[in-house]
Amino acid sequence: MSGAMLLPAAVDLSDGNGDWVVFVGTGGVVAAICTLVAVATRGASVRPTPRFGFLLVTSIWMASAFVGSLPLYFADTELSFTAAVFEAISGLTTTGATTISGLDALPRGLLLWRSLLNFLGGIGIIGMALLVLPSLRVGGMALFHLESSDRSGKLLPRVSQLASGIVAVYGVMTLVCAMLYFALGMSLFDAVNHAMSTLATGGFSTHDESLGFFESEAILIVATVFMIAGSLPFVLYIRFFLPRRFQRWRDPQVALFLALCVVLTLALAVTRVVINEVSVREALVSSAFNLVSVITTTGFVSEDFTLWSNAAIGIFFLAMFIGGCAGSTAGGIKVNRIIILYALVRANFARVIRPHSVQRLKYGHDDISIETLQSVTIFIFLFFLALLLGTAALSVCGLELLTAFSASLTAIGNVGPGFGQVVGPAGNFSTLSAPALWILSFLMLMGRLEIVTVLVILSPGFWRD
Amino acid sequence: MSGAMLLPAAVDLSDGNGDWVVFVGTGGVVAAICTLVAVATRGASVRPTPRFGFLLVTSIWMASAFVGSLPLYFADTELSFTAAVFEAISGLTTTGATTISGLDALPRGLLLWRSLLNFLGGIGIIGMALLVLPSLRVGGMALFHLESSDRSGKLLPRVSQLASGIVAVYGVMTLVCAMLYFALGMSLFDAVNHAMSTLATGGFSTHDESLGFFESEAILIVATVFMIAGSLPFVLYIRFFLPRRFQRWRDPQVALFLALCVVLTLALAVTRVVINEVSVREALVSSAFNLVSVITTTGFVSEDFTLWSNAAIGIFFLAMFIGGCAGSTAGGIKVNRIIILYALVRANFARVIRPHSVQRLKYGHDDISIETLQSVTIFIFLFFLALLLGTAALSVCGLELLTAFSASLTAIGNVGPGFGQVVGPAGNFSTLSAPALWILSFLMLMGRLEIVTVLVILSPGFWRD
Repeated sequence: MSGAMLLPAAVDLSDGNGDWVVFVGTGGVVAAICTLVAVATRGASVRPTPRFGFLLVTSIWMASAFVGSLPLYFADTELSFTAAVFEAISGLTTTGATTISGLDALPRGLLLWRSLLNFLGGIGIIGMALLVLPSLRVGGMALFHLESSDRSGKLLPRVSQLASGIVAVYGVMTLVCAMLYFALGMSLFDAVNHAMSTLATGGFSTHDESLGFFESEAILIVATVFMIAGSLPFVLYIRFFLPRRFQRWRDPQVALFLALCVVLTLALAVTRVVINEVSVREALVSSAFNLVSVITTTGFVSEDFTLWSNAAIGIFFLAMFIGGCAGSTAGGIKVNRIIILYALVRANFARVIRPHSVQRLKYGHDDISIETLQSVTIFIFLFFLALLLGTAALSVCGLELLTAFSASLTAIGNVGPGFGQVVGPAGNFSTLSAPALWILSFLMLMGRLEIVTVLVILSPGFWRD
Repeated sequence: MSGAMLLPAAVDLSDGNGDWVVFVGTGGVVAAICTLVAVATRGASVRPTPRFGFLLVTSIWMASAFVGSLPLYFADTELSFTAAVFEAISGLTTTGATTISGLDALPRGLLLWRSLLNFLGGIGIIGMALLVLPSLRVGGMALFHLESSDRSGKLLPRVSQLASGIVAVYGVMTLVCAMLYFALGMSLFDAVNHAMSTLATGGFSTHDESLGFFESEAILIVATVFMIAGSLPFVLYIRFFLPRRFQRWRDPQVALFLALCVVLTLALAVTRVVINEVSVREALVSSAFNLVSVITTTGFVSEDFTLWSNAAIGIFFLAMFIGGCAGSTAGGIKVNRIIILYALVRANFARVIRPHSVQRLKYGHDDISIETLQSVTIFIFLFFLALLLGTAALSVCGLELLTAFSASLTAIGNVGPGFGQVVGPAGNFSTLSAPALWILSFLMLMGRLEIVTVLVILSPGFWRD
């Protein structure tokens, strides 16, 4: 992150904006502290227990959010510390909700920093979902686990290969996206920024009007394609460079995710044509873009889609829960969990109908273990529990029910916009009180870390002996 | 039900209201048809397969709803057939949402019929939850199952003893409640009607203002006590008449349910005192009554509590999900499921922290079986799935998001009122379109039958071979 701060510093310096000092200063101090910590703990060995893993993951994200908030707080933005932390967490968790109004007037360094937070958060979550969470047995991700027979000397080279493969693919796709945006008329700066927040399914924009600013159907279509690209399991893209068994591996969540995108887009387009009486072409483009933006938990908007119709709002509401694929930058419940729960329902129905029949639970060609099933159960329960308790807590902060509920949902699903005037696509989070912003920050972080990762640390048993 | 129709017939006859003909006529025709069916199928033997059980349970409820709707449709109420069916399902499922405005002017026969629907639905659901659903393995109720070793010749007498014990307790408690209401100033008619809808946690009233009509704190307190009584497992009341092992059996859901009532009431009372600046006494009574009415899924109101404050709305929102205890007349997710899910979360957290530790899942003193766990998982998943799909479907019918969501929730949880002007405590369901009322009717029925019972029948596998 210290290194990344040099980029906005360079931009601000070339723009003649004094904020470059903030970036260089913060980056320097952070780098110095980290170097000192690294030197001080050099050679120290840690037992890689699950507890250590949970603490490490959560602290890295919290520390990153803190570091990420510093430039936003120290630069000339008038953001409170709370709002700066919220903004940084929203960026790193690729949520994309913002407390800043007047983005168009913001110095370019800060805009770039926000996009970089999305970009770094996106790569961070993919790495974590593929490499770290499986060994912590969190959230039913064990399906994507490198099998335990790999825990030999050969594991490390493979993990690092996997990691560099993912970073390379992520970088190349972002570059291609930026080039297309640029070719379609964005300024170079806008193209780079939006490409970063597109692939990260983050949703930070350099304009208050988000992608609506550009008034270009072609840009919306490119964005739609790359938001989907960011929501597919990244292992897919580097399958051919992986050991052979990954090449046979077909992931059923991809098909279902794409099917959901198509079906919900068409449903939305029908409401657009029937209720709003727009042309079929406009209906398809606006529906596809805004729906994909919500279902991939990106949070770009081309216009205030909550004004379309109640039917449209109902469809967006559904999409907000679904999310993308596991092993991608998207948030939400995620399609793999929906498949697993559906398999469970099917098997259970078959068993209650014919009590003596034997049912096997399958995810694609693989058996679903009891452990995976329980992880998914726990995730679903805790997701809704956190959503409801978050809603109640935000209500107690004085928010009206629809605002409280949709803000809680959009935070825990890392989507971005909610419903209603305050947190809806046309609103922003700047008017919320400090307690509400802290609650939402906590929900965003918890949602990003698959909930369990954070709650485990808060459980009394974690700290015993 | 035919027999029950004689009661409103008698009331209408003594009031000189012509509707008595409707009740006697409908009751007669229904009785005749049922007798013919009984005679025609006499001696026919059925294999008591699970499929037969599911079809039987669902058809009985649907047929009862149809029969229950006939007097409402044929009497002089100007209710459409859709609204009459909605009203009957709302009554039998003890939801208590109404499409009738102007209750105070309604003939007494119809008012009594509505209360009777609540009363019969209440006893029906207890019987079903204790005697039928466990053998269909639905909803994690197997905890309350008469063990399979009882499936001997001795089962039948025990089941019928249990059933008559429950009916007796239910009847006596309703009588006591009616006497107290009467002693506190209700008319005899109002006392009987409200007692029936109190114990059934149904919520139908004889006045548009619900219990607020009586302007009596004492009545609210009595109602609070008996709504709670209706939400506890009825086995509790007849424990001492049951075989010995039930006497040792302690049900942890009772303590948690009571604790939730107390904690949420106190939280609500604090908002009343701090935000609304009412006296502590008024705060406690109004909070306890309305909160208990929502958490027990009764649906009485003493005033429009959604006007209290956003904080209060958030607390009511939470309560709407919780519901009462399994084996009672209450709906919602139910406290036993919350305990089971919490046990799962605890065990899972302990296992991710210490992968080699062995965790046993306990409900009170009993082990929780994998089967129970999966039933609960499926219930939670389907509950939220139905809630969200119901919301989307109601949105497509043109309802605004908050109305759609809270109507869907209040229907599937069998609560009664939702939020917003249309379906909130001060509104009623009469302005909803026919498709919306059918969707809500389906949700009420599905929620009452623990969701799975209805969905199993709709699954393709049910009809195969």
